Amino acid sequence: MKPAPVLDRVRIVLARTSHPGNIGAAARAMKTMGLSQLVLVSPKSFPDAVATARASGAGDVLDAARVVDSLDAALRGTVFSAAMTARRRELSLPMAYPRAASQMLANYTAQGDVALVFGNETSGMTNEELALCDLPVTIPANPDYSSLNLAAAVQILCYEMRLSCETLAPPPDGAAMAAGFDEVEGFYAHIEQAMIASGFLDPGNPRKLMPRVRRLFGRVRLEKEEVGILRGLLSALGHKVD
Amino acid sequence: MKPAPVLDRVRIVLARTSHPGNIGAAARAMKTMGLSQLVLVSPKSFPDAVATARASGAGDVLDAARVVDSLDAALRGTVFSAAMTARRRELSLPMAYPRAASQMLANYTAQGDVALVFGNETSGMTNEELALCDLPVTIPANPDYSSLNLAAAVQILCYEMRLSCETLAPPPDGAAMAAGFDEVEGFYAHIEQAMIASGFLDPGNPRKLMPRVRRLFGRVRLEKEEVGILRGLLSALGHKVD
Repeated sequence: MKPAPVLDRVRIVLARTSHPGNIGAAARAMKTMGLSQLVLVSPKSFPDAVATARASGAGDVLDAARVVDSLDAALRGTVFSAAMTARRRELSLPMAYPRAASQMLANYTAQGDVALVFGNETSGMTNEELALCDLPVTIPANPDYSSLNLAAAVQILCYEMRLSCETLAPPPDGAAMAAGFDEVEGFYAHIEQAMIASGFLDPGNPRKLMPRVRRLFGRVRLEKEEVGILRGLLSALGHKVD
Repeated sequence: MKPAPVLDRVRIVLARTSHPGNIGAAARAMKTMGLSQLVLVSPKSFPDAVATARASGAGDVLDAARVVDSLDAALRGTVFSAAMTARRRELSLPMAYPRAASQMLANYTAQGDVALVFGNETSGMTNEELALCDLPVTIPANPDYSSLNLAAAVQILCYEMRLSCETLAPPPDGAAMAAGFDEVEGFYAHIEQAMIASGFLDPGNPRKLMPRVRRLFGRVRLEKEEVGILRGLLSALGHKVD
């Protein structure tokens, strides 16, 4: 099986990248593995001659890159997203290694676009960014020195994506359709407003209510029909949101 | 199981590297995965401030790097070596992917040092260099753009080595000991001299005799005892070499 059409559905999202050279090197790493969709969230400098130089023969990936101003915008239209993170966070989902994560992403390509998200070189992903993604991923590394270069991390994940897509089995008939990013975020907005309207959530003292809600529903990976049921229930309970 | 002691037995050999920045980036990639043994064969410039800068926190790997003037010297004392190559060569051994190759290398660490060899950025490995290695390895890549940066290739192989060493099973009791690089090369020198002395090989017109011999015995991966038998036989046939 040729992996190429499936790999076209994999977005590499670089969030708030500081060094344009890393954007170029990431584009090169992507192209070597057959990936083409690059999305940049508020890059410090792009386009940039340094990025173009480091991209080497992958200038076409840079030329086609989309620049957006939020991770939310980068993930719109995806059905599954994985985020690189070096450390476990409070309330985070169970972490996966790249091999297992890429197999999950490859499976979801049957339903639409998927995304691999990489945070800033120094600060990584914010908790808010991580909360938008379905699966935290950590690259196994030397505990005394786990400082992978951004493009090196992109290279490993793209390599695993290529291998996973090469060995992809066809999806089973009648598989439930995963809810997309937009649908799940719509549900979170709905439940948050319902909680506020009911007095259950005090916006002045939100505690960790919404992160806990996200953690709960992030773990189950909602299907389309389930989002419909949950939102229908919220509406029926008298907290209609439009 | 902690992979560290096993990873200390894996040499990363960079042959005739042109850009010192790539040496530094390779050192960083090694350290992130817990590897420490770097061997440089005739680097164009080393030590070099550019290498040190790109190594980031992996300066200790650079400081401990050995510089030698031939691949032969770099492989001395190893029991198994794999060489990255982008293309199939005439008379080459069957190629492996990084995952399978790293599992083989990990298994051989029970018997001694192993090596992963990376050629020059532009020209790769020479046929002579490749002939010194036990296993050609190719990284699966986009057929239209397979130009991985040297450090990116090192990163992928070190990542696979770390994973393979984490899941290493103990070697079976009574496993045959692999012949080391020095023993196998000693055998090749012996058989070549025997062929010349007997008139079978004309040094003025060697055809592809020695590459074919290397290909044959490279495929079987000689054990210590077998080298002893073969050299004993050559000596008994009257072509003693010391």
